[in-house]
Amino acid sequence: MSYSIDSDRLMADLRALAEFGKRPPGVHRPAFSAEDIAARKWLMTKLKEAGLTPEMDRLGTVIGRHPGAKRAILVGSHTDTVPNGGWLDGAMGVIYALEIARTIMENEPDGEIGVDVIDFQDEEGSFLSVLGSKVFVGSASLEDALDQTNHEGVKLAEILPTLDLPDGDIRLDRDRHVAFLETHIEQGPRLLSAGVPIGVVPSIAGIRRYEISTEGRPDHAGTTPVPVRRDAGMAVMCVATAIDAAFRQAASDGSTGPGAGDAVWNAGAITFRPGAYNVVPEAADLLFEIRAPDAETIAAMDSVIRKTAEREARARDVELTITDKANVAPTAMDDGAQQALRDGAGDLQMKYMDLTSGAGHDAMVMADHVPTGLMFVPSINGRSHCLDEDTDEADIIAGCKAMFQAVRRLRSSLS
Amino acid sequence: MSYSIDSDRLMADLRALAEFGKRPPGVHRPAFSAEDIAARKWLMTKLKEAGLTPEMDRLGTVIGRHPGAKRAILVGSHTDTVPNGGWLDGAMGVIYALEIARTIMENEPDGEIGVDVIDFQDEEGSFLSVLGSKVFVGSASLEDALDQTNHEGVKLAEILPTLDLPDGDIRLDRDRHVAFLETHIEQGPRLLSAGVPIGVVPSIAGIRRYEISTEGRPDHAGTTPVPVRRDAGMAVMCVATAIDAAFRQAASDGSTGPGAGDAVWNAGAITFRPGAYNVVPEAADLLFEIRAPDAETIAAMDSVIRKTAEREARARDVELTITDKANVAPTAMDDGAQQALRDGAGDLQMKYMDLTSGAGHDAMVMADHVPTGLMFVPSINGRSHCLDEDTDEADIIAGCKAMFQAVRRLRSSLS
Repeated sequence: MSYSIDSDRLMADLRALAEFGKRPPGVHRPAFSAEDIAARKWLMTKLKEAGLTPEMDRLGTVIGRHPGAKRAILVGSHTDTVPNGGWLDGAMGVIYALEIARTIMENEPDGEIGVDVIDFQDEEGSFLSVLGSKVFVGSASLEDALDQTNHEGVKLAEILPTLDLPDGDIRLDRDRHVAFLETHIEQGPRLLSAGVPIGVVPSIAGIRRYEISTEGRPDHAGTTPVPVRRDAGMAVMCVATAIDAAFRQAASDGSTGPGAGDAVWNAGAITFRPGAYNVVPEAADLLFEIRAPDAETIAAMDSVIRKTAEREARARDVELTITDKANVAPTAMDDGAQQALRDGAGDLQMKYMDLTSGAGHDAMVMADHVPTGLMFVPSINGRSHCLDEDTDEADIIAGCKAMFQAVRRLRSSLS
Repeated sequence: MSYSIDSDRLMADLRALAEFGKRPPGVHRPAFSAEDIAARKWLMTKLKEAGLTPEMDRLGTVIGRHPGAKRAILVGSHTDTVPNGGWLDGAMGVIYALEIARTIMENEPDGEIGVDVIDFQDEEGSFLSVLGSKVFVGSASLEDALDQTNHEGVKLAEILPTLDLPDGDIRLDRDRHVAFLETHIEQGPRLLSAGVPIGVVPSIAGIRRYEISTEGRPDHAGTTPVPVRRDAGMAVMCVATAIDAAFRQAASDGSTGPGAGDAVWNAGAITFRPGAYNVVPEAADLLFEIRAPDAETIAAMDSVIRKTAEREARARDVELTITDKANVAPTAMDDGAQQALRDGAGDLQMKYMDLTSGAGHDAMVMADHVPTGLMFVPSINGRSHCLDEDTDEADIIAGCKAMFQAVRRLRSSLS
């Protein structure tokens, strides 16, 4: 137990990776861009130098296999970024995996269970969110993937031949891969607010998305008394503010009901038609989403949304339509993997706390197929998916040490 | 007093005019369209047949002068329509004027004060709202008018040469024109609700328009707890709903404060940026307008808007900017003209009520230059500026009789 990861080497590799698509202080490295593929090829050389057996598949997903191991813990995340993204995001989780596997190769390469490094393609959804891990586990086929289009409407099948990628496919090996561990930046302010360096994720939040539409009558706003209007715009704003008030109330009660705990909600977009100063809005659309760590909270919030919307629509005499736009169930992380993460941090006298993941991650896809754990490190000011995303260097290093310790614990408990 | 207007002739002329640009049940006759010019030329022939001296000017404004009269009451409105508009709107006021002048020419053409018929160009603002009356009184120059562009960006100066219009200019004759009387459909439901056929307008409402903008922070909506967000979207919706609630409260109090009486308000358009399910809105813009019959109410409503917006912005920790987009003072109608309208309806045992005009009209422009009165007739379901705008035939006829009586009273009181 006297050895650990090399902090300087970790930071040097993180900075080297951030050169690919560099846009100071962040990076612009969308999946399947030239910079993305170059970064993945660079990773192949680093995996090879570490003594692992690197392989890239036809989509750009990279794996570094622990030679000689019959079984392995898969560790990693993704190196693609959103447009104008941060330098850490998933990249940090991949370099953690590289540094951890490299340290183990240098110190105790033998043993029943090895460490494989994984860098999934297109987690950020240039073509499809968590595309690489979906294909890896088989929940999306290669054909599904090739059929996806980017925001310019170009199919992945058209892009791929221009990128000089290999022919092979990398898939989950159910005999070999006994667990998956991912590290990601928190993308929120909770760890820093609490003064805690390590977040252990019990669950990735479920998401429901709604288009809430109202339809009234487009009266002349100068000549129609307010009480006789059927104002679709004011109605939908009353829906949004009343839902917000109900959820805030539940959260401040400390109750376990809707809006409590780690639940979040957002009114992200809105439009009125026809959209003029002097016309009472005839129609309005509101895009609303909720996220919560458990199905019961999701269901309770859903009920509040529907009841509130119906009440406000009735009060304003407008027609209401609620269209479901997405419905992703919460994903629980593996108890054993969670325990390894807690014990790993505890071994190093680091504080840790449970933290629901409000965002999706490759771990969400993996959890249905292999025992999976997800760990967070702090995000400065909670900034994420923007060029100025960052994490304190001490927190980056502490996170890698904690994950290293968790891998060692899991390696020994699964043996 | 034994003669009156000819109801059948009135209805026949209204229906004849509605043939120009007919789109059943309404009309599409925007200013400076071929249909608009054809309708104005038709009106010229009707004015001539009535014994008046017709003239059209270079913009298409038409006047029919009472021959021999040194002074005259100007009566009329506009025959241009909004795209896909109603058959009555301003056209009814022009045909009222034709029928009233024709009746007077037939029965008592002599007297100190004649009746001139006016049909203003482009009241609906194909190029500029109330363009014709503005040029008529000199508050806009011919050059101002020619420099206006339509929604396709084409200047009026480019359109005009294609329309085969005369060269002359028709202007307010301050020695001749002793008053202006306009009739218009109400464009709202108040007369019908009250069961009253005649509205006498004491004032055309003032209008203030605002762009209310908020700016916060574009956090990840899945990973940022609600209490620490700076949500520009929810903030601006809270501004709108809180203003609405304050105005409704004042209206239900029956107080003379903001929102009372004939005051109206509207949140007509709204946008969030970036506008996605999973991003807390960084910025939001709301277009809001208020209208009220007097400056005191406008000022009180303005104060509520600013205080409410500041309070809600502070509560949500967002930056607030309120930009003034329009500020038109209320326009009082002439006391004598109002009295003539009331007495005219009273003479005929018709019920009448005071009714603030929430919309602008040529009377608003005229009132600054000549004693002006404005009368409303009921609108079925309050519909206006749409193809299915209509007024009960009995109400159309009653309105013309009442206006005829008001013209006779004014003619005698001004002599």
